Amino acid sequence: MTDPLNAWLNEVPWNEQGLIPVVTQEFSTGRVLTLAWMNREALAETENRGEAVYWSRSRSKLWRKGEESGHRQKVRELRLDCDSDAILLRVDQAGGIACHTGRESCFFRKLENGRWVTTDPVLKDPAAIYKK
Amino acid sequence: MTDPLNAWLNEVPWNEQGLIPVVTQEFSTGRVLTLAWMNREALAETENRGEAVYWSRSRSKLWRKGEESGHRQKVRELRLDCDSDAILLRVDQAGGIACHTGRESCFFRKLENGRWVTTDPVLKDPAAIYKK
Repeated sequence: MTDPLNAWLNEVPWNEQGLIPVVTQEFSTGRVLTLAWMNREALAETENRGEAVYWSRSRSKLWRKGEESGHRQKVRELRLDCDSDAILLRVDQAGGIACHTGRESCFFRKLENGRWVTTDPVLKDPAAIYKK
Repeated sequence: MTDPLNAWLNEVPWNEQGLIPVVTQEFSTGRVLTLAWMNREALAETENRGEAVYWSRSRSKLWRKGEESGHRQKVRELRLDCDSDAILLRVDQAGGIACHTGRESCFFRKLENGRWVTTDPVLKDPAAIYKK
């Protein structure tokens, strides 16, 4: 890859699986929505489409966020960290729902007195989100 | 580990290296500061001390954040995600500096027109932070 247009992709310190962890944050509120992973192709496509595309480690394929659910993530900003090998993606979250459980954020459990307690409401029934 | 007091630690889906990625966010502003990693011992100590303790993958040892720099992170909230195997740590960042470069956040480079551009100022010279 000597294309100078792709130089920014070469600067990403891909791990031994060719992946990098991506923190996705709602632009307007600062709420952290998800931690997901991208490979080179996913990051290039994210930048090109202006919408988040991840690499699904469980399904071993590109995961165009919102393709089924409609809960797309419009890219407002892409950031790279100093050396901890991570990307920060700031987005407008369509529908205000990032989690497959129908909640705003995947981080909906909070440690309280030695227990992980679900603190966030389901905003939309997953059965309605993923209807065929 | 059958101690019921540690049940919450057993619910963490540690990866094959016994680690989990941790997104750390400034509580008051929502700024994402770092992505780091914890093992079971680091997470237990973080909860016990009320200050962030990570696992340094490069040094293969516990990393008590701020031990050298004074830039400790007081825990305000610990969250666990749905299934992507990640923790969100919301903290009060001492000194307003999380990055070893002397910047507020490690995510100080932003993609602009196909280049990673440093957008954040150095708030304190690292030589002054890590003075002997």
